[in-house]
Amino acid sequence: MAKSGTKPVGKSAAKSVKYVYMFGTRKTEGNAAMRNLLGGKGANLAEMASLGLPVPAGFTITTELCTHYYENKKSYPAGLAEQVDKAMREVERTMGAKFGNPSNPLLVSVRSGARVSMPGMMETVLNLGLNDEIVAGLIAKSSNERFCYDVYRRFVQMYGDVVMGLRPEGKEIDPFEQLIEAKKHARGVELDSELTAGDLKELVAEFKAEIQKRLGVPFPECPNEQLWGAIGAVFSSWNGARAIRYRELESIPHDWGTAVNVQSMVYGNMGDDCATGVAFTRNPSTGERKLYGEYLINAQGEDVVAGIRTPQPVTDLVQSLPAAYKEFVAVCALLEKHYKDMQDMEFTIQNKRLWMLQTRNGKRTMAAAVKIAVDMVKEKLITKQEALKRIKPGDLDQLLHPTFKYAGDEQVIGKGLPASPGAATGRAVFNAEEAEAEAAKGERVILVRQETSPEDIGGMHAAQGILTARGGMTSHAAVVARGMGKCCVAGCGELQIDYHQDLFTAQGQVVRRGDWISIDGSRGVVMLGQVPTEEARFSKEFATLMQWADETRKLNVRTNADTPHDAEVARAFGAEGIGLCRTEHMFFEGDRIVAVREMILADDEAGRRRALGKLKPMQRDDFEGIFRAMKGLPVTIRLLDPPLHEFVPHEPAQQEEMAREMNVPVEQIRQKVDALHEFNPMLGHRGCRLGITFPEIYEMQVEAIFEAAIKSAKARIKAIPEIMIPLVGTVRELADLKAMIHRVAADLTKGSRAKLEYKVGTMIEVPRAALIAEQIAGEAEFFSFGTNDLTQMTFGFSRDDAGKFLPDYVAKGILPCDPFQSLDQDGVGQLVRMGTENGRKARKDLKVGICGEHGGDPDSVMFCHQVGLNYVSCSPYRVPIARLAAAQAALSVSVKIRSDA
Amino acid sequence: MAKSGTKPVGKSAAKSVKYVYMFGTRKTEGNAAMRNLLGGKGANLAEMASLGLPVPAGFTITTELCTHYYENKKSYPAGLAEQVDKAMREVERTMGAKFGNPSNPLLVSVRSGARVSMPGMMETVLNLGLNDEIVAGLIAKSSNERFCYDVYRRFVQMYGDVVMGLRPEGKEIDPFEQLIEAKKHARGVELDSELTAGDLKELVAEFKAEIQKRLGVPFPECPNEQLWGAIGAVFSSWNGARAIRYRELESIPHDWGTAVNVQSMVYGNMGDDCATGVAFTRNPSTGERKLYGEYLINAQGEDVVAGIRTPQPVTDLVQSLPAAYKEFVAVCALLEKHYKDMQDMEFTIQNKRLWMLQTRNGKRTMAAAVKIAVDMVKEKLITKQEALKRIKPGDLDQLLHPTFKYAGDEQVIGKGLPASPGAATGRAVFNAEEAEAEAAKGERVILVRQETSPEDIGGMHAAQGILTARGGMTSHAAVVARGMGKCCVAGCGELQIDYHQDLFTAQGQVVRRGDWISIDGSRGVVMLGQVPTEEARFSKEFATLMQWADETRKLNVRTNADTPHDAEVARAFGAEGIGLCRTEHMFFEGDRIVAVREMILADDEAGRRRALGKLKPMQRDDFEGIFRAMKGLPVTIRLLDPPLHEFVPHEPAQQEEMAREMNVPVEQIRQKVDALHEFNPMLGHRGCRLGITFPEIYEMQVEAIFEAAIKSAKARIKAIPEIMIPLVGTVRELADLKAMIHRVAADLTKGSRAKLEYKVGTMIEVPRAALIAEQIAGEAEFFSFGTNDLTQMTFGFSRDDAGKFLPDYVAKGILPCDPFQSLDQDGVGQLVRMGTENGRKARKDLKVGICGEHGGDPDSVMFCHQVGLNYVSCSPYRVPIARLAAAQAALSVSVKIRSDA
Repeated sequence: MAKSGTKPVGKSAAKSVKYVYMFGTRKTEGNAAMRNLLGGKGANLAEMASLGLPVPAGFTITTELCTHYYENKKSYPAGLAEQVDKAMREVERTMGAKFGNPSNPLLVSVRSGARVSMPGMMETVLNLGLNDEIVAGLIAKSSNERFCYDVYRRFVQMYGDVVMGLRPEGKEIDPFEQLIEAKKHARGVELDSELTAGDLKELVAEFKAEIQKRLGVPFPECPNEQLWGAIGAVFSSWNGARAIRYRELESIPHDWGTAVNVQSMVYGNMGDDCATGVAFTRNPSTGERKLYGEYLINAQGEDVVAGIRTPQPVTDLVQSLPAAYKEFVAVCALLEKHYKDMQDMEFTIQNKRLWMLQTRNGKRTMAAAVKIAVDMVKEKLITKQEALKRIKPGDLDQLLHPTFKYAGDEQVIGKGLPASPGAATGRAVFNAEEAEAEAAKGERVILVRQETSPEDIGGMHAAQGILTARGGMTSHAAVVARGMGKCCVAGCGELQIDYHQDLFTAQGQVVRRGDWISIDGSRGVVMLGQVPTEEARFSKEFATLMQWADETRKLNVRTNADTPHDAEVARAFGAEGIGLCRTEHMFFEGDRIVAVREMILADDEAGRRRALGKLKPMQRDDFEGIFRAMKGLPVTIRLLDPPLHEFVPHEPAQQEEMAREMNVPVEQIRQKVDALHEFNPMLGHRGCRLGITFPEIYEMQVEAIFEAAIKSAKARIKAIPEIMIPLVGTVRELADLKAMIHRVAADLTKGSRAKLEYKVGTMIEVPRAALIAEQIAGEAEFFSFGTNDLTQMTFGFSRDDAGKFLPDYVAKGILPCDPFQSLDQDGVGQLVRMGTENGRKARKDLKVGICGEHGGDPDSVMFCHQVGLNYVSCSPYRVPIARLAAAQAALSVSVKIRSDA
Repeated sequence: MAKSGTKPVGKSAAKSVKYVYMFGTRKTEGNAAMRNLLGGKGANLAEMASLGLPVPAGFTITTELCTHYYENKKSYPAGLAEQVDKAMREVERTMGAKFGNPSNPLLVSVRSGARVSMPGMMETVLNLGLNDEIVAGLIAKSSNERFCYDVYRRFVQMYGDVVMGLRPEGKEIDPFEQLIEAKKHARGVELDSELTAGDLKELVAEFKAEIQKRLGVPFPECPNEQLWGAIGAVFSSWNGARAIRYRELESIPHDWGTAVNVQSMVYGNMGDDCATGVAFTRNPSTGERKLYGEYLINAQGEDVVAGIRTPQPVTDLVQSLPAAYKEFVAVCALLEKHYKDMQDMEFTIQNKRLWMLQTRNGKRTMAAAVKIAVDMVKEKLITKQEALKRIKPGDLDQLLHPTFKYAGDEQVIGKGLPASPGAATGRAVFNAEEAEAEAAKGERVILVRQETSPEDIGGMHAAQGILTARGGMTSHAAVVARGMGKCCVAGCGELQIDYHQDLFTAQGQVVRRGDWISIDGSRGVVMLGQVPTEEARFSKEFATLMQWADETRKLNVRTNADTPHDAEVARAFGAEGIGLCRTEHMFFEGDRIVAVREMILADDEAGRRRALGKLKPMQRDDFEGIFRAMKGLPVTIRLLDPPLHEFVPHEPAQQEEMAREMNVPVEQIRQKVDALHEFNPMLGHRGCRLGITFPEIYEMQVEAIFEAAIKSAKARIKAIPEIMIPLVGTVRELADLKAMIHRVAADLTKGSRAKLEYKVGTMIEVPRAALIAEQIAGEAEFFSFGTNDLTQMTFGFSRDDAGKFLPDYVAKGILPCDPFQSLDQDGVGQLVRMGTENGRKARKDLKVGICGEHGGDPDSVMFCHQVGLNYVSCSPYRVPIARLAAAQAALSVSVKIRSDA
């Protein structure tokens, strides 16, 4: 989603401004390209109408009007009413009915429609245009009294809620639902459908009375008043709390605004020759090229999405309504060919006649997105380049994470729909607030709900996965979870959820709040406990896409890996070398930490050398393992970076344990820990500063690297170590340490035929290093921008402390995003650019990369490409993301620079 | 002293290279301009000889030879021996005597002579060219047997020590001195001068025997062997431990090397018509235009400097040797006119004949330097510009610091020579090592010694002042202390020092190690205890010089001052405004800290506002006081900068006290302190980040500033506040806070006739701010580079922690100097330059200054001038230094950029 703060093409509200666009009438005025002005729904309705598809006639009020509305104290410009009136006359003409005319009434829907879909976030009013007089006319015309009162009942209920604001208070049940329940109770029936026309007619009156009683105002009987009430409600819902929260989560600008679509009603609930449904042209979960969706006979559209009745697969429609189905299949084919993308459609069949209510590019899982993109290239619908551009690199993440490793003894307690693939394990929680609260504490949770609603968005985001007892593949939970790339099992009917006691039972098992469960969103399975996971396996389409990306990109992609295992994972993900191997992680394992602490406690160089002597064979083995894993690919090894106090315990109990282990007085340890204390460790005695003051540490590491390389060579494994000096800020630091490295290499190969192939380079992570890059490149064979630290120092932000103000900064728009997640191009990026350009002045063939976490962030990868880096290096799981982002960067002609100016 | 690593103009040792230059012979080959090649002494001897002054003939072996010597394993190039031989023949011809010829012997001195004076750091051998046979010839020629044996005895003793290395071991007394003492004891006499010619002859033999016994080698009898031994000893002494340490302290490059001067001996100790002395053409302590110096009748030059006999004022020579004195006075006048500077000379009168042995620009106190420079302009010897360039700005420091504020009841325990002016208070210590050790702990000490020697240099540097019991105004202690600008009282004969017990007694008082004493180097007084000090008063010459500086400089000079008192001091020192007024210092005083803590403890904005309300009147008073002190001059006020945890106690006991005072549970305080804890406070929640998250704090400060300005205006005091936002890293931070400031200003002046004149600007102290200066200047009316923090972040050095490696970095030459003392021009300076240039692109009239401590560092001031800043701001005491440095910068045509490349 775009992040810019682009303003709508707002004009002043002169009378001449056109705010209303027709569709499905004699002349359709919009098209798909007018999404910014007409919203997604409006633009696509217009586009469908232009294609000659059966679209109920209607008109769109533009997003510009929404902007005007908010900029002018929620008022409308002069002339709007006339434009709306005129449009309504045109719709009446097309549909052969009249809005507000009892003898031949036209009913309309009023819906929101923003530039991008915000499912369920804004308001809709259906069946608008009814009152007691008009319903009588409708009955006369349709000869279906029960249907007409059902429509009327639904309208009053929805309008009362959405426009007039009659909503349950506290834990109260919806007041309209209470009246319905009371009516059913009085009639001794169980289902809504068992209520008679008379019952419904009574309900309408009761609803209106309830509105008058609770709100102190009458239900508006005038259709035109109803229309403007609904339009206002849609505009207001743009700034509802839910919608604002959604936009924040999805980075949608608040000033885009929504359009309003006013459209003739068609009915899927006029009888058994009617139906309503939603469908995708391909499977949005797997990408399979097969019509996919659901419908309900004799129902309104909302019934399908709400998940109250369990719908049938759309393909079954061939039995129920074969002619309409045949037409629908043809429409699907046409739309997909037209839009060159998988479509998500809403349709209604009214008395066997097909009406298309909506089409849009369908949301899909990442696996589906990849398959669809690759398949469409094979189908010659799109080009390879288009396929590559179509996948959002960051979302690939969903494909790369582990899946469950089934042993066969899992305790399955339920089966639902595989609504959004993935493997999630967490503690069960039963409401969204709790999910957010627990996640904030670092807990992994699964959100368990009867069904989800837009209010649950925050909790769904925070949860590892979502499990619902009701609802289908297109239910709220399923749609939203797929969009988030979040694992979801929906409609697991076996679940008996007791919100009151915070537990659910399934197959005789009780799962309480806090109990561990695991859900498999690819298989729809719910299991007790924490099921172990294994690495993802990739589809052949994924491999194809990655191959196209590799053919396209200019940047190399390396990985940050400290162990042979990580190195292997990354290699499998396509890493072309290691860009950052942090040696200090090796210091913590097993009994190494003992030797490290012995080194730290030593009073003199001799003592330190003794302790380092114990470490060296272990470090050598580490490097050998990594060289083996990366066979023949370059491995950039960073010498010790963190300050020494990170290796000693700071708690008294642990210090005493260390004293016992090392057989020294605890006082000695305390003194050493105190001596090592730093006020600002980030800016302290670390990196090459340690290498300068304690040369023996780096010497040991360099010996271990070269000895491992020599041993590897003997085993016919080519090792290409690139030794990287951290935290260099002056050219002399690098020069002195480089001299040491060359000396160690010479000493190790003296008198032998062994020849060491290696490079010496430096991290550029101190601002000064970037500033004097030309000097430093005189000594360095490569640069690797350590953008984590470079960001800390350039902003003066301590990553450990910035939590106190950084979220506030992003929320207030002082920063466009967290600069530790996406590279700050104006500031830090300027140093990267300057460092690269100036470094290459001194050394034309200087190899330049980036190894901060930004190496796996698509926007940052784009920037690295533009600046002309040789490679990015990122964590193993982000390697495919970087490969795709690099390909997109190479394809992008326009230069995209984000600015916070 | 220059800091560059310039290499000597070294050439390869081809035979044709000229290594030996004559002076005082028929043709003098050098001159004063050849200081780099011939050393200071050699160049000046040549210059004096060229002027026709009586200089004993001799020759100089160049510094290039010293370089060759060290580059070639301490060997000499081919051809050198021939050049030396030839030169010696020429000297013999001039002096009418022959080196090594018993019938008419020529004796020579062999002395070091580096480019810059390194007093006492290297070796000297006098009276060289004697053996038993030659001394007999000398006696025959001089008819003064005792003198000849005295010379011979001195030669063997000095050669044995300096060249052959016979030195006392451990606590042993010098072996030669032991033999002399034994001889005096045997003869029953007390003074050396009471020993007879026979006694001295015996001593010579005993000295030689001691050398043979202790070193196992005979004393060399061959004069030529003696000569080469002495030359080698001088070259070797260049790399002696003392000399290396001295060069490190004085920043003299180790590769400059020393020259060797071989010169005919003349004698001030041949009888009562002989004398030797040292003199300055003006008073080096006050600058008074009056011959100043000391001499001894019948003595060798070393006797004067060593301080063993107390010499007479040089002006007394008019009585003892009137003709020679008259000639000397003429020579002095000639030399001063020639060199256009005050001269420091050594002379000897041998049998009434004057010989000039050395002249050089004399070291002087800063007061003297200023007076001499200004006087010489009035005497038309030099121009104003030359006078300005002649004063080292940093040394002005000596003049600016307080002097004792005498009440009349000081307990004076001794009176000595006012050897180097100033007022020093510290604890007595009795050796140099201890002085260094105590100073390293932060103690202020006075080094008390019988007399000082070159071994004491480190301790003298570390001490606040130096007190000696023996020695005159030109003793080692006096000369070195004046050079260092260190307070010194010398030759305080009343002191009875007992090194063994670490104490001294004087006037019946016992002062033990660690007792406080105060010494007044301007009056030569020693006092018990800590005498209070008062501000320095300035001479009229100082005022004149400063006036010339002000006429010359382009940079404005402001001050960093937080109180009305500091502001007044700075204004007296010539500050043209306040460049940095830190408001947080005001938060600590008296009961303000209580209100500050109340604000920090408050749970919500309302609580914070209540506490801030108490602070506001106090802040307003502060600002009023400062506006009054700076009447009409601009005052840059920085809003709160440090993180809030600096205002709360971290020790449990203090937390409990705070809890009692504020009447809250201590647990609440602990929790708040924990919540405020930061891992890297330097990079934490501080500066404008506080202003963004707690807007009420900055609002209070801004209200206090404007209310103070309005009140000042009513009192007819013009206040020009410049409000400065600290730690800005993004343009929005500044824009948002600027909007708040304008709003506060508008609110305060609403409905009144008051009009506020103020500016809003920002510190540039985060590297990112310098990088996006063009954006920021769109909002800022001024920039002030906070180079302290900018240096921390650009290098990634925490100033609080860098002590662990920074001294090592400077010692190893990784950095040319401490970047917190002198601005790092390559790195930090690049940001300053970039920030200034880019800022002015957006705002042509952007006012740019610097307010880090570098604002008072002369090299940094030079840089600020070159970069085109508008002003520097420094601590009050450094304002005159900055004024002079700015003048020198304006005068300097050559661009001087230091680089560590």
